[in-house]
Amino acid sequence: MINSLTPFVTYIKNFKILNQVRCASQVLPQLSSEKYNVKRKSFGIIEASDVDYFKTVLSEDRVLTDDNDVLPFNIDWIKNCRGQSKLVLKPKTTQEVSTILKYCNQKRLAVCPQGGNTGLVGGSVPVFDEIVLSFILMNKIISLDEISGALICEAGCILENLDNYVREHNLIMPLDLGAKGSCHIGGNISTNAGGLRLLRYGNLHGSVLGVEAVKADGTVIDCLKSLKKDNTGYHLKHLFIGSEGTLGLVTKVAIHCPALPKAVSVGFFGVENFENILRLYASAKSSLGEILSAFEMADNDSISSTVKNLKIPNPISDYPFYVLLETHGSDETHDSEKLTRFLEKEMESGLIIDGTVTSDPAKMQTIWNLRENIAGAGLIEGYIFKYDVSLPLRSYYNLVPLLRQRLGTKASRVYGYGHVGDGNIHINVVVPKYSQEASSLLEPYIFEEVSKLKGSISAEHGVGFRKPHFIHYSKDANALQLMQQLKQLMDPNGILNPYKVLPEI
Amino acid sequence: MINSLTPFVTYIKNFKILNQVRCASQVLPQLSSEKYNVKRKSFGIIEASDVDYFKTVLSEDRVLTDDNDVLPFNIDWIKNCRGQSKLVLKPKTTQEVSTILKYCNQKRLAVCPQGGNTGLVGGSVPVFDEIVLSFILMNKIISLDEISGALICEAGCILENLDNYVREHNLIMPLDLGAKGSCHIGGNISTNAGGLRLLRYGNLHGSVLGVEAVKADGTVIDCLKSLKKDNTGYHLKHLFIGSEGTLGLVTKVAIHCPALPKAVSVGFFGVENFENILRLYASAKSSLGEILSAFEMADNDSISSTVKNLKIPNPISDYPFYVLLETHGSDETHDSEKLTRFLEKEMESGLIIDGTVTSDPAKMQTIWNLRENIAGAGLIEGYIFKYDVSLPLRSYYNLVPLLRQRLGTKASRVYGYGHVGDGNIHINVVVPKYSQEASSLLEPYIFEEVSKLKGSISAEHGVGFRKPHFIHYSKDANALQLMQQLKQLMDPNGILNPYKVLPEI
Repeated sequence: MINSLTPFVTYIKNFKILNQVRCASQVLPQLSSEKYNVKRKSFGIIEASDVDYFKTVLSEDRVLTDDNDVLPFNIDWIKNCRGQSKLVLKPKTTQEVSTILKYCNQKRLAVCPQGGNTGLVGGSVPVFDEIVLSFILMNKIISLDEISGALICEAGCILENLDNYVREHNLIMPLDLGAKGSCHIGGNISTNAGGLRLLRYGNLHGSVLGVEAVKADGTVIDCLKSLKKDNTGYHLKHLFIGSEGTLGLVTKVAIHCPALPKAVSVGFFGVENFENILRLYASAKSSLGEILSAFEMADNDSISSTVKNLKIPNPISDYPFYVLLETHGSDETHDSEKLTRFLEKEMESGLIIDGTVTSDPAKMQTIWNLRENIAGAGLIEGYIFKYDVSLPLRSYYNLVPLLRQRLGTKASRVYGYGHVGDGNIHINVVVPKYSQEASSLLEPYIFEEVSKLKGSISAEHGVGFRKPHFIHYSKDANALQLMQQLKQLMDPNGILNPYKVLPEI
Repeated sequence: MINSLTPFVTYIKNFKILNQVRCASQVLPQLSSEKYNVKRKSFGIIEASDVDYFKTVLSEDRVLTDDNDVLPFNIDWIKNCRGQSKLVLKPKTTQEVSTILKYCNQKRLAVCPQGGNTGLVGGSVPVFDEIVLSFILMNKIISLDEISGALICEAGCILENLDNYVREHNLIMPLDLGAKGSCHIGGNISTNAGGLRLLRYGNLHGSVLGVEAVKADGTVIDCLKSLKKDNTGYHLKHLFIGSEGTLGLVTKVAIHCPALPKAVSVGFFGVENFENILRLYASAKSSLGEILSAFEMADNDSISSTVKNLKIPNPISDYPFYVLLETHGSDETHDSEKLTRFLEKEMESGLIIDGTVTSDPAKMQTIWNLRENIAGAGLIEGYIFKYDVSLPLRSYYNLVPLLRQRLGTKASRVYGYGHVGDGNIHINVVVPKYSQEASSLLEPYIFEEVSKLKGSISAEHGVGFRKPHFIHYSKDANALQLMQQLKQLMDPNGILNPYKVLPEI
C-alpha cells in the first residue's frame, strides 16, 4: 500500500547532496543581511529583562539563548540564509504564544515563527535578531473524527506523524511533501503547501476546516471549527493560509482527511511531443477521472540526465517526453482494468508510444525513483538555475524552448519537468559554472515571460525572504496595496516575520 | 447521464408552493425595515443629478427608475423581505462597476449588489433605498480551457447556463444547487454556496481559481488567475468568497470544472438508527471512496410525511431512517459492482435493513424526487420553523430528539434530513399554526445548542439580512472584531450591502 514514500526519502537525500555541494567551501552560510544587502528595521533590541520575562512565561528550558542552541534555528534547510537571532522561545500552548506576542508587540520586538524549517525561500529563519518562536513543542493531536475525517491538532505536529496516525484509522492526510518527515502542519498551512496529492485531494484552502491563530497583539482568533459547511460571516481562516506567518501565527488546525486508498497503480509512458501530453492528460482525466492521483511529465533531457548521471534505470526506451501517472482507488481490479484500457486505447491512438503499468510495489518505486531524482541529477554537470513556476496548461512547456534559444551554448542543458495536473513546472538551467552573465540572461526575463503568460513566479514555495522583490510579476499594484493594508491592519508594528512576503514600499 | 436535474426542478417548484402559501394573504411582502424594525443609516439620498450621472456612465436603458421596473429587484425569492430602492443599475463591464462604486463611495450612496436574487436570508435585496447594482448583463463566458478545466466568465452568468456549456466539453460545474436555473456564479461565490456536490467536488474556496472584484472605492482587485498553484503573497480572493458583497463586488470568476462523470448510480436504504447511518457513511467512504458523490439522510417522519402529504411513492418499506447514496464515476460496470458489493456487505452486517440500487434514469429520478420533496412536504400540516445548521457528525441528529422533547405536543412534527457527508442537517418543526410561544421555545435555544456543539447556525444560506443578530452563536468576539476591522478597511463608508452580515456594534 502507498509505496510512494520511498521517493520522498530519496528527495530529501537529494537536498542533502545539494547542501553539500553548495556548502562545500564554507562552514556557515553567509549572513542573509550581508548576502542580500538588507537593512535592519527599527525594532526593539532584546534586553536581559525581556529574557527574564520570557522565563516567567515559559519554563527556563524553553528559552534558548546559548549561541550553539540558537544556531540551527538561524539557518534554513538549504543553507542559503542565515539570521542573527539570539533567542529562541518554545511555547507549549496557545496562551503562551498569545502572551509572548502581546509582550513583543508592546516592546516592538520582531518575531520569526518557525515550524519544521523546511521552507525553500528563507521564510522560516530570521534575518536579523528576530526572536524565533518555534512550534516544535506544540505537537499534540487533539482529536480525530474517524467518520467525518476531521483531524484537529496543534500546529507543531510533523506531517508524517499525522499521516501515520490517521492511516491507522484508514485515512490519509490530504497533502504529501518531500519534506514530510520534518515539516509542521502549521507551516504547511502558513505557506499553503501544495505537494504531490493536490491534483486528487485539492488544495489547503479547500481541505483546511478551521484554524486557531494568534494575531500580532496576542489576540486569539478561534476559527477552529471542524465543519465542512459554515457560512456565518467572513471566512477568516483563509487570511492565515499562505500568508507565511506575517498576518498571524497558526496555533491549531482542523483538517479534512480523505479515505485511505485501497489500491495504488503507476503508469510510465513515452510520448512524442508536449501537445500529446496535454491530449493524454485530457484523456486520463476523462477515462480515469476519480482515481487519477498524479499526472507528472518530464522531457527527454530530464530523464536522460537522471539515467546517465545517477545510474537510475529507465523502464522504457528513449522518448522525447515521458508521463508518470498514478491512481489511488478503492478496488485494485477496477483500477487496473481502467488503467490497462486507457493504455491500450492511447497506444492505439498514438498518444502513448510505449508504456508500462504496474501495481507491484517494487516496480512502482523504481518509476517514482526516476521521477523524483530528476531534481538532483543535473548537479554533477555544473551549476543549476532552478525555477518553480506555474503556467496555464497550453503554455506549460513554452519557456523551455524559449530559454534554450536565449541561452544558446551558454547553457549545457535546459530541461523541464513537473506536475502537469497542477500546471506546475520545474525549469532547470544547467551551466558549466555560475556566471553573472547567465543569471542576467535568465532574470528577470523568465519572470517577465511568466507574467505575460498569466502564470505564477512561485507555484508552491511561497515568497518568503527571497522573492518579495519579484512579487510584482504575479500581483498587480492594487493587489499589493491591499496586501500592505491587510498587514497594517493585522500587525501595525510589523513585528511578525519582517523582511518577508511584502515588498519594501 | 446525470439524471439528477429533475429533482432540482421539483425543488424550485416547492419554492413556488412555499411562496404561494406565505403570500396568500398579501399582495406585497411587508417592508423589511418595518417588519424587522431597522433604522436607516445616514447614507446620501439619491438626487436627479445622480441618476443623470449614471445615465452618462451606462446607456439610458440600463438605469431603471420606474417603480414597476424596480419592484422585482426589491423583493427576495421567498418573498420575505422588501426593500425601498428607487434605482437599479445594470453595468456591462468591470470598468462600469468601478466607475459606479467610485461615485457612490464619494457621495456616500449605499449599494446593494444583486445576482440571481435567489438568496434565502435577504442578502440580495435592499432594505431601504440602496441602489441595486444588478449583474444580470455581465453574463459572458470569457474562456474555457478544456484540458485544465479552467472556466473564466463574468459574475452574472447563470449557473445552469455555465453547466450546460461546460458539459458540451465533457466537464461539469463543481457546484449544483436547487436555484441553478436562476442563481449567478458571482452570487454563488459571494455567498460561498455549498449545494449537492460538495461532498465529492469540494467547496468554492477549493475550486475557485481566481476572482476579479471591485472594492467600495472603485479599485479593481485582479486575482483572476486560472492556476491551480500560485503562492505569491496573500490569497486575496478568499476575502470575496462568502463575504456576501460587503467587502467588494465579484465581477469575474475563474473556476475549476471537474470531468463529466460517465456513470451515475443511486442507492436508497432503510436503516435502524442514526448510529448505523454514521457507520454506513464510514463504510461507504471506505468502499466507494472516490465515486461517492452524495450521502443524504432522512428520518422516518421526513419520508412518511412526504409519502403521505405529497403522494410520492417510497421504493422501499417503512424504516426508522433512510439513506440516499449517489455515485459519480467513469465506468458504469465498475461503479455498479462496487455499489452492489457494498449493499450486500452492509445488508449482511445489518447496517442496511433493506435497499435498492439503480442506474436507471427513471428510477433514480423517483428516489431523488422523494428526497427533494421533503422540504415542502410539511407545509400542508401547518406552519414550519426551518433551520439549516451544520454539526459535527457525532452530534448531527442530536437536536431532533431534543426539540421533540422541548416542544412536546406543541409541535405536530419535528424531523431532520440533510447532507450527512457535509454535516449539514435541515431541521423542520411543524406546528399547527405560527405562535410566538413556539418561536420563543425554539429561538435562541436551537442556536445555543448548535453553539455548544461547535456547530454552525448557518451551514449554507449565509448571514445576509436575517441572521447578523445570531452570528455571535457561531463567531466569537475576537473573530467578530476582526470582521468589523476588515469591513472598515475595505469599505470605510460602509456603502456595500449595508444592514447585512455584520451585527450592529
